[in-house]
Amino acid sequence: MSLKAISAKDAASLDRDLMDPEIGGWSLDQLMELAGLSVSQAVYRVHPPSKGKNVLVVCGPGNNGGDGLVAARHLAQYGYTPSVYYPKEGKNELYQRLKKQLHNLSVPFVQEADFPSSLVTSHFLIDAIFGFSFGGPLREPFPSIITQIESSNIPVLSVDAPSSWDIAAGPPKSGPGANFMPACLISLTAPKPCVMYYRGRHFVGGRFLTSQIAEKYGINVPQYPGVEQIIEIGVDAEGRL
Amino acid sequence: MSLKAISAKDAASLDRDLMDPEIGGWSLDQLMELAGLSVSQAVYRVHPPSKGKNVLVVCGPGNNGGDGLVAARHLAQYGYTPSVYYPKEGKNELYQRLKKQLHNLSVPFVQEADFPSSLVTSHFLIDAIFGFSFGGPLREPFPSIITQIESSNIPVLSVDAPSSWDIAAGPPKSGPGANFMPACLISLTAPKPCVMYYRGRHFVGGRFLTSQIAEKYGINVPQYPGVEQIIEIGVDAEGRL
Repeated sequence: MSLKAISAKDAASLDRDLMDPEIGGWSLDQLMELAGLSVSQAVYRVHPPSKGKNVLVVCGPGNNGGDGLVAARHLAQYGYTPSVYYPKEGKNELYQRLKKQLHNLSVPFVQEADFPSSLVTSHFLIDAIFGFSFGGPLREPFPSIITQIESSNIPVLSVDAPSSWDIAAGPPKSGPGANFMPACLISLTAPKPCVMYYRGRHFVGGRFLTSQIAEKYGINVPQYPGVEQIIEIGVDAEGRL
Repeated sequence: MSLKAISAKDAASLDRDLMDPEIGGWSLDQLMELAGLSVSQAVYRVHPPSKGKNVLVVCGPGNNGGDGLVAARHLAQYGYTPSVYYPKEGKNELYQRLKKQLHNLSVPFVQEADFPSSLVTSHFLIDAIFGFSFGGPLREPFPSIITQIESSNIPVLSVDAPSSWDIAAGPPKSGPGANFMPACLISLTAPKPCVMYYRGRHFVGGRFLTSQIAEKYGINVPQYPGVEQIIEIGVDAEGRL
């Protein structure tokens, strides 16, 4: 399957279009619900609960982190025992409500001091730290977090982009993230250019684009099967989608 | 499977709890997205696109209608060709945004004069007219709509309750709805008391309750399989769940 990547600038513009009352008419609540749901479905596909229920969801301060919070909620409903590490909380009231929803499901929030031991006791990790709006450089505490994830043996699913990677140029040449190659990646709505450096299982999620928006941004909407919110796509030997 | 029904009063209180920032922390956008998604999954289960893609979604002015609008959107993404009949539009700005999202997917809105012919050309109908807050009597144009649906041969999925039925006492003794027995019913979060009068395929959807809320209202949360947002439950010969 051939899927075009869209730039960080276009991804930001697409999000604005979706949430413009005169254009897309979506709320952030709706979009994040469907994005987070697709993340949770990808986790279930690659790591069903029978492989280990402890999923550590590491969330950044923006919408990528919000997608992670929603995914954690759905995973709790699927019978996983997720925990969330959310070192720099977003200010948006939506994030606070998502936290409330997780507290109500008894999903624990990991403290900074407990993150290293959480990495050891978890079976799977969702990297929902940074998405397409990441412009670098990494600021504390994220260099340390990326380094710890990188040097652990835990299988990782990154949301939209491996955190620390440049959205266009891919992994940093050195330092935290230089050797970060998550086992799985889920691109939301469309792959970002950095996927050309990615080797691993690759999903697309976010089943809500219209043909008009897809055309505007030159996106090939994949043929999602049945009622699924995700589709796995291949990467060929040259790294092309 | 034994599932307790909850009263209309408790269902209304449960909704308020879910959306109370101090209790559930949910927005209506989130809840309606998941409710509508579960409706769309039930349609796909009982009437996959191979059986006919024309799904007519009849929406009432309240949240039941909103669930129908969301379901129509997901059905369009699944490859159906839904159309919507929305004779009394809700005032809430969310409903207007849901309409916008449907317009962007080229989902047609049926005019009153075209409803009878739509009933003939559609393969399946979603009854999203009234839910648990229906207190009767039916007001125009709904008696006529119910009568037309009732006397047509189209298979129907009702959302939360067969519209025109009393939430406690079931089908009206006479008049529109007295012979309304939809082929399928999806109860959202929990069955309502009128299911004891219901004979047909019965689903439960709305996979978002916490154990605390379920306990407060005496709800047995069903064991949804995998990542599915619905579960089919049986009705025994005496009509017990």
